Amino acid sequence: MRTTGTTIENDKATEVTNNQTGKTMKALVYHGSGKKSWEEKPKPEIKEPTDAIVKILKTTICGTDLHIMKGDVPTVTEGRIIGHEGVGIIEEVGETVNNFKKGDHVLISCITSCGKCEYCKKTMYSHCEKGGWILGNLIDGCQAEYVRIPHADNSLYPIPDGADEEALVMLSDILPTGFECGVLNGKVKPGDTIAIVGAGPIGLAALLTAQFYTPAEIIMIDLDDNRLDIAKTFGATHSINSREDVVKRIMDLTSGKGVDAAIEAVGIAATFELCEAIIAPGGCIANIGVHGKPVTLHLETLWSKNITITTGLVDTFTTPMLFKTVQSEKLNPNKLITHHFKLDQVIEAYEIFGNAEKEKALKVILTA
Amino acid sequence: MRTTGTTIENDKATEVTNNQTGKTMKALVYHGSGKKSWEEKPKPEIKEPTDAIVKILKTTICGTDLHIMKGDVPTVTEGRIIGHEGVGIIEEVGETVNNFKKGDHVLISCITSCGKCEYCKKTMYSHCEKGGWILGNLIDGCQAEYVRIPHADNSLYPIPDGADEEALVMLSDILPTGFECGVLNGKVKPGDTIAIVGAGPIGLAALLTAQFYTPAEIIMIDLDDNRLDIAKTFGATHSINSREDVVKRIMDLTSGKGVDAAIEAVGIAATFELCEAIIAPGGCIANIGVHGKPVTLHLETLWSKNITITTGLVDTFTTPMLFKTVQSEKLNPNKLITHHFKLDQVIEAYEIFGNAEKEKALKVILTA
Amino acid sequence: MRTTGTTIENDKATEVTNNQTGKTMKALVYHGSGKKSWEEKPKPEIKEPTDAIVKILKTTICGTDLHIMKGDVPTVTEGRIIGHEGVGIIEEVGETVNNFKKGDHVLISCITSCGKCEYCKKTMYSHCEKGGWILGNLIDGCQAEYVRIPHADNSLYPIPDGADEEALVMLSDILPTGFECGVLNGKVKPGDTIAIVGAGPIGLAALLTAQFYTPAEIIMIDLDDNRLDIAKTFGATHSINSREDVVKRIMDLTSGKGVDAAIEAVGIAATFELCEAIIAPGGCIANIGVHGKPVTLHLETLWSKNITITTGLVDTFTTPMLFKTVQSEKLNPNKLITHHFKLDQVIEAYEIFGNAEKEKALKVILTA
Amino acid sequence: MRTTGTTIENDKATEVTNNQTGKTMKALVYHGSGKKSWEEKPKPEIKEPTDAIVKILKTTICGTDLHIMKGDVPTVTEGRIIGHEGVGIIEEVGETVNNFKKGDHVLISCITSCGKCEYCKKTMYSHCEKGGWILGNLIDGCQAEYVRIPHADNSLYPIPDGADEEALVMLSDILPTGFECGVLNGKVKPGDTIAIVGAGPIGLAALLTAQFYTPAEIIMIDLDDNRLDIAKTFGATHSINSREDVVKRIMDLTSGKGVDAAIEAVGIAATFELCEAIIAPGGCIANIGVHGKPVTLHLETLWSKNITITTGLVDTFTTPMLFKTVQSEKLNPNKLITHHFKLDQVIEAYEIFGNAEKEKALKVILTA
Repeated sequence: MRTTGTTIENDKATEVTNNQTGKTMKALVYHGSGKKSWEEKPKPEIKEPTDAIVKILKTTICGTDLHIMKGDVPTVTEGRIIGHEGVGIIEEVGETVNNFKKGDHVLISCITSCGKCEYCKKTMYSHCEKGGWILGNLIDGCQAEYVRIPHADNSLYPIPDGADEEALVMLSDILPTGFECGVLNGKVKPGDTIAIVGAGPIGLAALLTAQFYTPAEIIMIDLDDNRLDIAKTFGATHSINSREDVVKRIMDLTSGKGVDAAIEAVGIAATFELCEAIIAPGGCIANIGVHGKPVTLHLETLWSKNITITTGLVDTFTTPMLFKTVQSEKLNPNKLITHHFKLDQVIEAYEIFGNAEKEKALKVILTA
Repeated sequence: MRTTGTTIENDKATEVTNNQTGKTMKALVYHGSGKKSWEEKPKPEIKEPTDAIVKILKTTICGTDLHIMKGDVPTVTEGRIIGHEGVGIIEEVGETVNNFKKGDHVLISCITSCGKCEYCKKTMYSHCEKGGWILGNLIDGCQAEYVRIPHADNSLYPIPDGADEEALVMLSDILPTGFECGVLNGKVKPGDTIAIVGAGPIGLAALLTAQFYTPAEIIMIDLDDNRLDIAKTFGATHSINSREDVVKRIMDLTSGKGVDAAIEAVGIAATFELCEAIIAPGGCIANIGVHGKPVTLHLETLWSKNITITTGLVDTFTTPMLFKTVQSEKLNPNKLITHHFKLDQVIEAYEIFGNAEKEKALKVILTA
Repeated sequence: MRTTGTTIENDKATEVTNNQTGKTMKALVYHGSGKKSWEEKPKPEIKEPTDAIVKILKTTICGTDLHIMKGDVPTVTEGRIIGHEGVGIIEEVGETVNNFKKGDHVLISCITSCGKCEYCKKTMYSHCEKGGWILGNLIDGCQAEYVRIPHADNSLYPIPDGADEEALVMLSDILPTGFECGVLNGKVKPGDTIAIVGAGPIGLAALLTAQFYTPAEIIMIDLDDNRLDIAKTFGATHSINSREDVVKRIMDLTSGKGVDAAIEAVGIAATFELCEAIIAPGGCIANIGVHGKPVTLHLETLWSKNITITTGLVDTFTTPMLFKTVQSEKLNPNKLITHHFKLDQVIEAYEIFGNAEKEKALKVILTA
Repeated sequence: MRTTGTTIENDKATEVTNNQTGKTMKALVYHGSGKKSWEEKPKPEIKEPTDAIVKILKTTICGTDLHIMKGDVPTVTEGRIIGHEGVGIIEEVGETVNNFKKGDHVLISCITSCGKCEYCKKTMYSHCEKGGWILGNLIDGCQAEYVRIPHADNSLYPIPDGADEEALVMLSDILPTGFECGVLNGKVKPGDTIAIVGAGPIGLAALLTAQFYTPAEIIMIDLDDNRLDIAKTFGATHSINSREDVVKRIMDLTSGKGVDAAIEAVGIAATFELCEAIIAPGGCIANIGVHGKPVTLHLETLWSKNITITTGLVDTFTTPMLFKTVQSEKLNPNKLITHHFKLDQVIEAYEIFGNAEKEKALKVILTA
């Protein structure tokens, strides 16, 4: 999702020597609104026979992590290790893990899935009764040297030798989110005219994956001209700065009909209402944005327009498919990566990512 | 849709003799908010080669007609003949009408479809560029002795000899509306638990047609205990009076999950918000109600629930299918009919239908 | 599927006393073509932490079991305990089984699903890399006092107290098979005209579950008048004996168009070719029958008819849904049960079931 | 579809002067198996108020036309003007044609649709009760200076000024056929591995339009290395000459699983059976080829593989969508055009097109 600036306070973490050989590791820890530190923590251990311990090779920061650090996500308590994206190498597996063994390279899904509950059986992993989005939220996460992954067989994906691991970090969250919640829910079809409201990383992920379905026109809308310029290089056919009369511009472009799909990738009332104003009869408004407040639904005009509105937390059920499109070079996630850091520079990385507009940052890669 | 009481003023229409043999007929005419009369009007004539003139045999009154009579529908101008439902017999056809000839018995669709425009080719007849809902709205309608039907080949349906014409009047609008906008948009599936909010004629039409897909539980919600009792006889498995704590009752019934589909058949903010409160993760809220005002969409809670919300004017693309279910006795529309009148008693019929709760009225049949 | 008579040889099983308290049990064992016995076998034990041991309460015989006993199923080796249907009570669970505990009443699915492989993640449990149809085939099955169920969390379903266990035995295989491979693959819709070729248990299962979608007409075709009479009581609107000119009868019934869906529930060339002859343009031929030989596909006439042909082993992904329809009394599986036996009368039960036409047998229940 | 060589006999057509101003025109006429001539014929006239007369600007030859010329299509009688593809300019319209007027540039669909019958209302225009494939078959066609198009409103598409008319000729038949019967019926999805059997014009049309859905791998199979080379430049990721062990090659490429979709674009038994051999569990075999003989369906192996087989005459319901993809440069139909002729060189064009392999011909353009 599009993220706004955040104030980041650099806790001075005490360095600990020789944590590789012992029972400790370094990790980024949330200590309440505006406070975080890169500090020593106990190395995670297998708790359940379905767990795996993964040594992180590459991770990244999500817009949601910025919200967590601002104290906006009440489920995250003080002391929590943050992060829900990454690739790594299996360090140890519980006794009933069958799909993976020590030494396997794996992609971590932001969604944990038990594979056994009512929701998992309906491919709605986001609502898994024992999982869902818990990593870096209800349990310790990936901005660390090691992470424990519950239900590893259903929550990790194998990475073949020689795969581009930085590209695959983008498959932990941002690409399935843009694709499932934006493109699939928006029912993007060949020949469609679609609008994506918000050209932050998540909107750009929707832009990249919308092209799987060959829409005729993709109109990108944002306040940041730099991001709009990037969107054009990513395949947007039109861009509109939100300061313009967006509704008029889109109606002019569409002979007054509006767009077949409007993908909301910001998460505020104004952008949702823009989607309502530009949707064509029979069209879909797909919400990706994380909304903190109610919005106004104009049923007095929309009731007769035969439209569909969707919401959704990502299920990551498309991860294997996205993986194939990366391997076959139909999708290039590296386009989203603007900055590289060492994992122990994570505090600095947050500063850059938290000032995305000024720094022209999209996604950052942290390498262990 | 559910309708509330309306003040009806009986215009004293001047009786005209011998209108059958001449160029005039009797019709119900709207004369501005609260004013209507059963009066003499010119008999309609073929204007386009695709027109048909239909002699009305049976017609009915829709909740929307009550709104028109209250002045709530600004597209309806004074002098308009009201009504968009009925069965009749073809009196005359334009020269390019192929599907029908003089003497054929026909069902009139509330939606006029040209069959040629971009929307008709997408089966979205409600948005036909030359049609849509125009009968008894932008052109003269069916509460009359005769009606002109534009684009007759695509807007009328043949009725075989011996068919139950009163039952088929229910296929002009109410049954396809309940089915398409409620049941199909709500994606009702075998084994589902669904709620229908509003047990007026349109909610009951959704109730009857929802059973095509064999949901396990159908919970009917209304303020009127009589209508709830009727709903139980129509196949509802549970009924809840809106004065109760509906959300609690439904959560108790569904182990706290909510319903798979919530069909909104009233058209006010309170009932839409009820649907938001009772929808299960992954569920659909299907709006049938005609909304006059915006509602509050609680994206702050729904953003992560993977739900779908739909709106829709009926396309009547399911009319041939509904016809087959009536002919094969899988659907009994007569259940919806509570009162019978002669066509020239239409003013009286409006009084009864306008006091639906007191009169225990659902649909009325007016016979020419 | 429809089954034909089979020669059954009653092995004289040596009775063993007191097997309940020891390490042995009684089970029906296949000893090569035409040979079987009810004999003492070791009681199954937990082998994997994902296993459960189930004490059988009720089981049944499938047409496929008759094929096995004739030696038609080469994957079944001598010494195998037969049977893949049943309800029971959990005797013991492996340490990672979470959904069930000792004492739980459960329904056994004929399909074993690991919940972790590529196919399970696509809800194609029939092709599970570690499961699929293995019970009573590659591993010991359910016609026994106890059975080991691998991947218990994904291969068993909970049964609430007071549920009708005989009805639920029909959900192990026959009802999901008729529903998934016949009704869902056949895309049965409200108002459709469908034909079901074969009125054996599996064809009747398709007949019962087709009514979830309210087709207007269901034409049942079989050689056995008794089964056709039963089909009429189960909801078939028409029945045709295969000795008649079936194609002509169906074309007369459908104004020469043919049927919207033709469900093949026998498994021989003649019945498949009948489906080809009666399918309407745009229709679906859904194969449930287990075919042993190739058939002729008349592409020289069908190439331009826009039809769909499907095949399928059951995935049992609809079992929870079917369960809800039974609990809500929308589906009455007991209709399929014609005979009852004690489990130790299984040899006698095979004789009756193997002479189904003469004995007017559909499904038998074996009670432990 | 892939076409094989045909013997073409050049009838010596008598030239007629000044046919432009009079009541005659020049046209390609079929005179029985192996006989055709470019000759003078009466200029077509409006017969029905729904007709349009179109002056041909560009047309082409279809593989089906070669079959007609060999006498393989019994519905085509001697004296028939051949051809069902083209773009032109409206010369005259019947009185009820609304969508077009004299002077409009139009694309001709190979399928005539009345827009009013049961099949047209289900978007199955191929089976239109008054249309379907009649052009150059049951009525005179497009390889002529003028053509009469029945049901013009539903059978022609508007072309904007400046559009590439040669590209659009490919939208009359070959591109919607490859797309609808191959790609849509084959349910091609992002990340899929698909095979297209036959790299003639229709197979290449499937190849171009399959990429709308971003499959990971597209394997092209043909006997002609030149066409395979072309396929690689059109986006095929792999090519296999049919002389190789195709099944082994594909199983090696797919880890033994087979392909998600196999598109049959030849129309003979061998290629259909190849598709049966390479389809993965859960996959789709989509037939585009025009089959003249029955094929063997291996239900003895496929019954349990959960596959789908489709057939289909093109409906051309996707023509407006394909048009948008051409206008937005997502699809470049010009790639299919290898040869250009003047319309009066049509006999010569047939010779080249009829020796497609030797001449390296795909589609030819004939310009009036």
